[in-house]
Amino acid sequence: MDLGERIFALAEEIFPICRSITGDGVRETLRCLKRYIDLQVREVPTGTKVFDWTVPKEWNIRDAFVKNTQGERIIDIGSSNLHVLNYSTPIHGEMPLSDLKPHLFTLPEQPDLIPYRTSYYREAWGFCLSHNQLLQLPEGTYEVCIDSSLEDGHLTYGEFLCPGASEDEILLTAHVCHPSLANDNCSGLATLTYLARHLSAKNTRYTYRFLFAPGTIGAITWLARNEHKVGHIKHGLVVSCVGDGGGPTYKKSRRGDAPIDRAFCHVLRRIATTPNILDFSPYGYDERQFCSPGFDLPVGLFQRSQFGRFQEYHTSADDLAFIRPQHLASSYRMIAAVLHMLERDYRPVSANPKCEPQLGRRGLYEPVGGQTHTPDYTMALLWVANLADGRHSLLDMAERADLPFDLIVEVAQALRTKGLLTECGGRIING
Amino acid sequence: MDLGERIFALAEEIFPICRSITGDGVRETLRCLKRYIDLQVREVPTGTKVFDWTVPKEWNIRDAFVKNTQGERIIDIGSSNLHVLNYSTPIHGEMPLSDLKPHLFTLPEQPDLIPYRTSYYREAWGFCLSHNQLLQLPEGTYEVCIDSSLEDGHLTYGEFLCPGASEDEILLTAHVCHPSLANDNCSGLATLTYLARHLSAKNTRYTYRFLFAPGTIGAITWLARNEHKVGHIKHGLVVSCVGDGGGPTYKKSRRGDAPIDRAFCHVLRRIATTPNILDFSPYGYDERQFCSPGFDLPVGLFQRSQFGRFQEYHTSADDLAFIRPQHLASSYRMIAAVLHMLERDYRPVSANPKCEPQLGRRGLYEPVGGQTHTPDYTMALLWVANLADGRHSLLDMAERADLPFDLIVEVAQALRTKGLLTECGGRIING
Amino acid sequence: MDLGERIFALAEEIFPICRSITGDGVRETLRCLKRYIDLQVREVPTGTKVFDWTVPKEWNIRDAFVKNTQGERIIDIGSSNLHVLNYSTPIHGEMPLSDLKPHLFTLPEQPDLIPYRTSYYREAWGFCLSHNQLLQLPEGTYEVCIDSSLEDGHLTYGEFLCPGASEDEILLTAHVCHPSLANDNCSGLATLTYLARHLSAKNTRYTYRFLFAPGTIGAITWLARNEHKVGHIKHGLVVSCVGDGGGPTYKKSRRGDAPIDRAFCHVLRRIATTPNILDFSPYGYDERQFCSPGFDLPVGLFQRSQFGRFQEYHTSADDLAFIRPQHLASSYRMIAAVLHMLERDYRPVSANPKCEPQLGRRGLYEPVGGQTHTPDYTMALLWVANLADGRHSLLDMAERADLPFDLIVEVAQALRTKGLLTECGGRIING
Repeated sequence: MDLGERIFALAEEIFPICRSITGDGVRETLRCLKRYIDLQVREVPTGTKVFDWTVPKEWNIRDAFVKNTQGERIIDIGSSNLHVLNYSTPIHGEMPLSDLKPHLFTLPEQPDLIPYRTSYYREAWGFCLSHNQLLQLPEGTYEVCIDSSLEDGHLTYGEFLCPGASEDEILLTAHVCHPSLANDNCSGLATLTYLARHLSAKNTRYTYRFLFAPGTIGAITWLARNEHKVGHIKHGLVVSCVGDGGGPTYKKSRRGDAPIDRAFCHVLRRIATTPNILDFSPYGYDERQFCSPGFDLPVGLFQRSQFGRFQEYHTSADDLAFIRPQHLASSYRMIAAVLHMLERDYRPVSANPKCEPQLGRRGLYEPVGGQTHTPDYTMALLWVANLADGRHSLLDMAERADLPFDLIVEVAQALRTKGLLTECGGRIING
Repeated sequence: MDLGERIFALAEEIFPICRSITGDGVRETLRCLKRYIDLQVREVPTGTKVFDWTVPKEWNIRDAFVKNTQGERIIDIGSSNLHVLNYSTPIHGEMPLSDLKPHLFTLPEQPDLIPYRTSYYREAWGFCLSHNQLLQLPEGTYEVCIDSSLEDGHLTYGEFLCPGASEDEILLTAHVCHPSLANDNCSGLATLTYLARHLSAKNTRYTYRFLFAPGTIGAITWLARNEHKVGHIKHGLVVSCVGDGGGPTYKKSRRGDAPIDRAFCHVLRRIATTPNILDFSPYGYDERQFCSPGFDLPVGLFQRSQFGRFQEYHTSADDLAFIRPQHLASSYRMIAAVLHMLERDYRPVSANPKCEPQLGRRGLYEPVGGQTHTPDYTMALLWVANLADGRHSLLDMAERADLPFDLIVEVAQALRTKGLLTECGGRIING
Repeated sequence: MDLGERIFALAEEIFPICRSITGDGVRETLRCLKRYIDLQVREVPTGTKVFDWTVPKEWNIRDAFVKNTQGERIIDIGSSNLHVLNYSTPIHGEMPLSDLKPHLFTLPEQPDLIPYRTSYYREAWGFCLSHNQLLQLPEGTYEVCIDSSLEDGHLTYGEFLCPGASEDEILLTAHVCHPSLANDNCSGLATLTYLARHLSAKNTRYTYRFLFAPGTIGAITWLARNEHKVGHIKHGLVVSCVGDGGGPTYKKSRRGDAPIDRAFCHVLRRIATTPNILDFSPYGYDERQFCSPGFDLPVGLFQRSQFGRFQEYHTSADDLAFIRPQHLASSYRMIAAVLHMLERDYRPVSANPKCEPQLGRRGLYEPVGGQTHTPDYTMALLWVANLADGRHSLLDMAERADLPFDLIVEVAQALRTKGLLTECGGRIING
């Protein structure tokens, strides 16, 4: 199996699990991922104060259905996790359709699809179904059962630290709370798991922290418990919806010009003709928490199609048929390319800042008649030598020279080999 | 009478008065305005040094005419104040047309109109008339009479202070030196008088200072006598030509990005499809003095049609027919909208800067199925919470979020009510 | 003879000399220039370390030819200096065409032209010829002779200092190493020589330093020997290819917004409808050395056609027919206009910063009916008075007012004559 197929297979494996922001669905998902990476699973008790929030009661569900007068399960969690309003309180009883209807959620504009709905912080029960099914429900008495529990327990998240040469960290995170939605975000969980496994076998400059936590409350909980560590986070990325063929989409961090922002723009603009580069806005995924004013971390969001802008978003159409191995693989490669760029970026200092170094006698400059290097290679050499004043990163140079970052890295390495460049202080760019 | 009609009636009342930069015309005008607001009238003696300038002799005029050989008044101040060159020295005598002609001013390209001309700082006498009338003057001897006086006296201006909660001031000023020109600037005097009356009945955060002074020398005199007070001026506006239907035009202060500049741009861009926003230039009205390099105050200029760019400018066509009640009312509302914005602007600080506040449990966030707020309202809440770091004013937020300032104010108030925002230091934005 | 014809005559005089980066060709050229200006000729010994470089062996050439079997000189330095690969090592012998061919350089895409090729830092010998001639060479044995020497000696450059009132310097430089190429850059040598002669007869504010040195190694040698002096260089310009009718082209310094950059943009945009203004890049002429990160001097490059972008570049077509007296004269005037601008630029301070000065009583403002000044003159007066806060140079004012620099200078002088402006600190703008 190629990489895309393997990522897809993992997404496929975790797709059926009925996740929520707490409960056994999260635990089961993390157990799956733990087979690939040495994930540390954390349990935080209900009632724990996390900034302005409180860890909620733990929700678990065993069964949920609506039966008609013939005793047939006309709505059944067994056919789709989405059928139950996520975080529904338990109920069991009979009621006429008129009492049931306020608890039924549909998408009148997409009448064949089951919506995905939640009610985490306001106790309620309900079912989601296609609008067409709703229209066909006959009057009568229905048996309604949601065999759920909402009790003191824990919030669960998984963390994987992949140490590098430096304590400076790159944070990569995907949410783990959506039930049976393939793109949003089994795709992200599977892609980051494979990326984590890949990086754990490498010697890296940065330390990589992977976080798989329920949306919003999970990120908030992690931040509350790790406030002392966030100073290490030099770059960060939220990943979701990376299995479809749209975009690529990158939403910048609140800072707007963090190195992660500039690196993603550089990579996506060279891969795609019209990448969807968005300014920060406080609506989206967990970048909302990392980019809150008290943290203001350099954390962006990577997606293929932009969330909320594709038809399948938060519906039963976001299924395994909607994501494709080749898109998962290309998303993986885009993220990996940005990480590879950050790994290699630094601010070189010329060992020979006064006048140009004599490249020719070091074999770096065209001798007469020889065409060993491309004109771009020669220009890259001259740019790096010229801008190696300790104030310009290699990415700055690539942008000013309008040359590929990889070429800039290549010539910087050639100049270092010849003793013409040194590094500025630590290698890490603090952005 | 509605507001526009009342402003128009005041403009109509002061239109016939023969104003100049000194003299009884100014005093009579200020007496009219004093019926609406408790104007303080200041008198500054001729010869007073005001920076590089000197308060000039006071000019008053009782009569002015040219009679033909039949003894008919063919030019008569009684029919238009514009007929006399403003600040003309006295003269009485007979002379042939050839001697009179160098003292006659016309507009050959607008042959039906009487021009408005002055000679404040160079002693001269003269008459203004239509070019067509000039062409028809027969040879002959003319009796010329200008019964004026140019003597030691005073320069007069009016000032009205409307105290607010803070000593920080917003300065609003219009010139009071033009005779019988309706748009330039009976319109400004009448509009600001009604605005002053309105504000004096309100509890405001800012102190408002209204200044009605002769152009150039009046502003210079005020600045010379109030140099110690200018530090209080946080925002300022010169108002002229606000009775026609053109524009709206806003000319920025010398700083170019003062809060008054940004507030006017925000308001006018939402009111008008193509507002006429001009960069500062040192030609115009009294913003020239307030924006001189030694003061560099944040004072802009508001107009409807841009001065010097409309045909009627500085001619007898700038009469009461040229201004309209509805335009006066809309100009009033534009200025009031900007003041209302400045009154409400401040830099909030989140009481909960780490991660998002939990809006849902405070009733600020959509519960499932409920649509109590518009999507813009929710986005505004998220933006304000995200940018409330003490560095962003509400206007900054409105601009970055691309949402109406009023909505930003509304959600900021909702967040304050819930204890989620505090103010940063004093409420006043010092620009 | 007019100026253009005189510059052309000097270019014509030095055109036939076989220059290289060292040797008698440079000395002979500098002797020609010395007849016009009191040039100081410097000799730096072979082997001298200059930053990362070493002064090379001195190259001289007496003869070079290829004879066919009939003993005819089919390639002969006597017909063009370009026929010999510049810096060729000596050789004398016979060889078949197959052995000769690797030493023959042509331009297949411009088959009638002889290329200009060098091999300074890698010992080699060779001939340049037209591709058509190469194609017609019959098989056979050829006598090959390059009667050159490559021995310890000196690198030679010429320097002319034209003292001004201040020690602050403007550096003007052209390279002196190209043999028999008219535009690149006999044109620059001749133009700068006439400019130097002109300035030496003037009282200037700046000190002018003219440098005629071989490309790259000459500039590096000068910088290595004058490192302690470079702090005096406030503005600098490399001049090459100024005899054709293209462009004008200005390539900005590495800083991008140095006063020399802004002055050239201001001048060229008013002279040419579409001047070719280029951002800095580390490829070009000796601005590469002056703009290396250890110096980062404000040195730009002025040309007519951009180097490398015209067909004749580095070929035998860059001959005396390619350059024209009128183009040399207009290039001279463009450079002179920029220098004249820099000479007159400073940051004035208003003696009367609070409110406008009373221009009228000083005869600087229009009295009624008088039209002694243009509207632009009046606007320029107001702008200079308004911006004379010690932070704006006259060039800043010209740009903000969108008025010609010369007019700004004229009104600043008028204001100074009236005591309304003083200078800020020293007159020199340090950029």
